Amino acid sequence: MKSGPLGIFDSGVGGLTVVRAVQDLLPAEDILYLGDTARMPYGSKSPETIRQFADEDARFLLAHGVKGIVVACNTATAHALPSLREKFQLPILGVIEAGVDAALANPQAQRIGIIATRGTIRSHAYQHALALRRTGLLIHAQAAPLLAPLVEEDWIDHPATELILKAYLDPLIEKGIDTLMLACTHYPLLISVLRKLLPEDVFLVDSATTCAEHLQRELTRLDLLAPDSHEGKLEVHLTDLSEEFEVLARRFLRKAPGRIQRAVLGGA
Amino acid sequence: MKSGPLGIFDSGVGGLTVVRAVQDLLPAEDILYLGDTARMPYGSKSPETIRQFADEDARFLLAHGVKGIVVACNTATAHALPSLREKFQLPILGVIEAGVDAALANPQAQRIGIIATRGTIRSHAYQHALALRRTGLLIHAQAAPLLAPLVEEDWIDHPATELILKAYLDPLIEKGIDTLMLACTHYPLLISVLRKLLPEDVFLVDSATTCAEHLQRELTRLDLLAPDSHEGKLEVHLTDLSEEFEVLARRFLRKAPGRIQRAVLGGA
Repeated sequence: MKSGPLGIFDSGVGGLTVVRAVQDLLPAEDILYLGDTARMPYGSKSPETIRQFADEDARFLLAHGVKGIVVACNTATAHALPSLREKFQLPILGVIEAGVDAALANPQAQRIGIIATRGTIRSHAYQHALALRRTGLLIHAQAAPLLAPLVEEDWIDHPATELILKAYLDPLIEKGIDTLMLACTHYPLLISVLRKLLPEDVFLVDSATTCAEHLQRELTRLDLLAPDSHEGKLEVHLTDLSEEFEVLARRFLRKAPGRIQRAVLGGA
Repeated sequence: MKSGPLGIFDSGVGGLTVVRAVQDLLPAEDILYLGDTARMPYGSKSPETIRQFADEDARFLLAHGVKGIVVACNTATAHALPSLREKFQLPILGVIEAGVDAALANPQAQRIGIIATRGTIRSHAYQHALALRRTGLLIHAQAAPLLAPLVEEDWIDHPATELILKAYLDPLIEKGIDTLMLACTHYPLLISVLRKLLPEDVFLVDSATTCAEHLQRELTRLDLLAPDSHEGKLEVHLTDLSEEFEVLARRFLRKAPGRIQRAVLGGA
């Protein structure tokens, strides 16, 4: 057993859906969250730039004595997880393995849809991870770059959101998907609308819940769990602060995030 | 008369609508364009962060020997123009003065609508500039944060875009605006849809055209125009490169941008 908080980072505030799921499942863990709001979003940017940003994010968390790191951003997991694991000698989890585990837990899963940012889709990280694990899968990946902005605007129930979602989902529904992977940490906030638009029997896999479950297994395996008696605390650091980010943070976390601090990252 | 290119910067590729307008009006000018695609967009970020980024953008252009700078980003103009002018001893133009000039060129203009990013609206830069210039104006400002992502996706003619535009415009139309200021360099690409949704007699003012006209007047006044015989060249530098940004650049510029170079900015 090792002390120290868990470090969780994301390009912005989306990763707070992962924080919420971790708090629900592992209430004893202290969490240090870093959101790179000054340079968000990562989803449209190049692999090189994302690797550089993720490196700086990880170094910030390491400098704060974290016992492990969760990359709570699908785009950063897709492009930077291998290089982070090469560079840093502590447990580092992403959101992709966990999602793939959860999708394939169903032995009948055969036609898998994926929605994500353009960066995540273009990386083929989900497509590769799925294909390596089960032969004969039919995988349909759909970049859905307008969803994160709509979630940030809180237009969840707006007719425009339904129209845009239909544009993204209809091609997947036509392919007869049995599973839909929500491969962006913003998307758990869309689950109610997604449920309305998808056939009833499509199984939804979200990054937040599956990542928290994966984390629990890994911390148990590595004997890194905080003692049950401890009451976990959350510290939120953002590279850019504004009232708007505080409002967003509260919405993603479903409660007040406490005092948010401004993080200054070192160079690469 | 002084030699050297004009420096034009923006948070991303939106400022290329200004470049296009400048090329149309001042074909003899060499242009050095910097788009901070690694950290785009600026529109949702805090004034302090935008000032820091704009400072780094301006220093990059200065290091390349520009004779003057155009801040082709409404959010950066709103938050950073005064501090840039204090720090740097060369002509620096923004997009706001030009737009305000153009709106008030009509002596009948009385009810002015403004659409822009949240950052531009919150800065009150347009509202102040207008109110200082003419008393008795009725100014209605509307943050329209989903428009830039829709333009970047090229969903100009998508029914969702019309729905979202109506949500932003209807309150302005109800107020009886006679003028609509498109206070974001992405919005010129929406003019055809805007024309369809607005009453016929609403006068549209766009940042790109008005900024180019303002620039022509200023360069003439300061005797900084390039000689007519010269054939202006364009150099595009972006802080993050990707195929997607090249596609976007071509769309905003309405022609191939030539070879795009990766810009590395110094610290603040």
